[in-house]
Amino acid sequence: MITVLTGGTGGAKFVDGLQQIVPPEDLTIIVNTGDDMLWWGLRVSPDIDSIVYMLAGKISQERGWGVESETFFALKTMAQMGEPAWFSVGDRDLAMHIFRSKLLSDGSTLSEATAEIAKRLGIKSRVLPMTDSRVETRVLTAAGELSFEEYFVQRRFQDEVRAIRFAGASHAAPTPGVLDAIRSSEFILLAPSNPVTSIGPILAVPGIREALHEADGVIAAVSPIVGSAAITGPAGALLASQGFAVSITGVADFYRDFLDVLVVDSQDEDAACALRKHKDSSTTPRIHVTSTIMRNNGDRVALARSVIEACHQSGRTLRAAQQA
Amino acid sequence: MITVLTGGTGGAKFVDGLQQIVPPEDLTIIVNTGDDMLWWGLRVSPDIDSIVYMLAGKISQERGWGVESETFFALKTMAQMGEPAWFSVGDRDLAMHIFRSKLLSDGSTLSEATAEIAKRLGIKSRVLPMTDSRVETRVLTAAGELSFEEYFVQRRFQDEVRAIRFAGASHAAPTPGVLDAIRSSEFILLAPSNPVTSIGPILAVPGIREALHEADGVIAAVSPIVGSAAITGPAGALLASQGFAVSITGVADFYRDFLDVLVVDSQDEDAACALRKHKDSSTTPRIHVTSTIMRNNGDRVALARSVIEACHQSGRTLRAAQQA
Repeated sequence: MITVLTGGTGGAKFVDGLQQIVPPEDLTIIVNTGDDMLWWGLRVSPDIDSIVYMLAGKISQERGWGVESETFFALKTMAQMGEPAWFSVGDRDLAMHIFRSKLLSDGSTLSEATAEIAKRLGIKSRVLPMTDSRVETRVLTAAGELSFEEYFVQRRFQDEVRAIRFAGASHAAPTPGVLDAIRSSEFILLAPSNPVTSIGPILAVPGIREALHEADGVIAAVSPIVGSAAITGPAGALLASQGFAVSITGVADFYRDFLDVLVVDSQDEDAACALRKHKDSSTTPRIHVTSTIMRNNGDRVALARSVIEACHQSGRTLRAAQQA
Repeated sequence: MITVLTGGTGGAKFVDGLQQIVPPEDLTIIVNTGDDMLWWGLRVSPDIDSIVYMLAGKISQERGWGVESETFFALKTMAQMGEPAWFSVGDRDLAMHIFRSKLLSDGSTLSEATAEIAKRLGIKSRVLPMTDSRVETRVLTAAGELSFEEYFVQRRFQDEVRAIRFAGASHAAPTPGVLDAIRSSEFILLAPSNPVTSIGPILAVPGIREALHEADGVIAAVSPIVGSAAITGPAGALLASQGFAVSITGVADFYRDFLDVLVVDSQDEDAACALRKHKDSSTTPRIHVTSTIMRNNGDRVALARSVIEACHQSGRTLRAAQQA
């Protein structure tokens, strides 16, 4: 069994690589819901949608989010009626939000609704929202406190970030199956998602970080930082806002209390050597260097294979150490 | 001031004729909501939509309902997910249902939501749902009791109708402005809509029939029956199911307690003569013969002009009678 903790876009690509080399029934995907919001009164779960569309083979490969060959007629109509239109909901995507909203208003939990959606789309991997409660990633900026999608999509992450909080997290509980999946998986993989606002909300749900501490499996993360910047998106600025270096060292520090393996890009070979040399070995993960940038499907599959191989090696090392 | 009582398709064409010859501010349109339903959890008001799309110049002229140049990608996606797809909601139309549902869930009444929608679409006439309560037209057939849209759209009005009821009508109240509009208008016009299931639900809302009895204005109806059949739809079968003749006589009988003028098609010249001759003049409306079939825009305008002219004449006759 393999469990993945993930956000949307970059994480979805990583999951796509995994699903091509691992039997889908062996994959449990725990997904960030901190970006969820009500849009036109409908419940939108951007990261769950990206994962579900990817697993169902429906994601737009050009955009990296939403449905392939999408149209936006409802969105244009809403704009004409004077409603907000900055969040690009396509017509096919809208069906998903309507269906989820109906399931929720009929009494389903988000995890039940997600399981139903996955079933309808023929998805065999298990997709688990991190929590059925409302946990909202709130981004404090000079312009005020924003929802994550306001910060990320509406304002294109141009605001300087003063603080991040996960509203509701302290009262949230992991969805059924999340803690067991983490505790019982052979490998627990953190996708190359934004550590602060994609993986961070998952870690903020009480019980999940503890489960990572208790996990017997190998825990590996793929760094979304290459060199001194994120591959895409605001991960760099957000790490800096939390006092972490914008480098693989910052990522290692962010996950240091539970991480066994950090997978970094070949461009960071030197940084990897420095990290291996200078850090306290008890809190420094094993560094695995490979090509992490996923430009095409071959890259995705190769990265997934490389990460799994690094986990196998690390597992053998751990077992050898335990037996010694 | 002119007040129109109407359903969707045929009524919308009649309203279109009127809006071309009357200042839009002078028109109040009271619309059937007995066909309203929850579709995918969204509040759909088919007749309000037809009227609003017509007044906004957005209606599909080919279909007579929905939005022009419409696409159906969300509908196809819903069908792929295994959800019902027999009600043809287009992508642009979907925006309307989402917006209305949001306004309602934010606490607006249906009449407030309708006024907001009309404002956003630049409509200057007043569009009033008959009631803010839920009144549902229920059609009893051998296949069980159906909602109107199940009977009409899903099953294409093939079932024999045993009974009609307007669930919730006894507890409903007219929306603000409805009774005043009827009482104070110079002309009150019943569109060539289905008397039983388009005008019938409006008349079933307590207070509306009484307001028609008290109205000082001339009350005129355009017969949706020409010869021995409805121009379109199930009006004939529904009139028959209620014990009325499927003819202009049946329509005259259906409205007999308040109708001043019945506008019938030229094809019914002979039936009009017979009706004038044989009926008790105290309960028989004045019969106005004109071309009522609206094939094109010229027909709509001509019918509207003819109905208004008949009302003017009838008004003069009434005043002359009162003065004599």
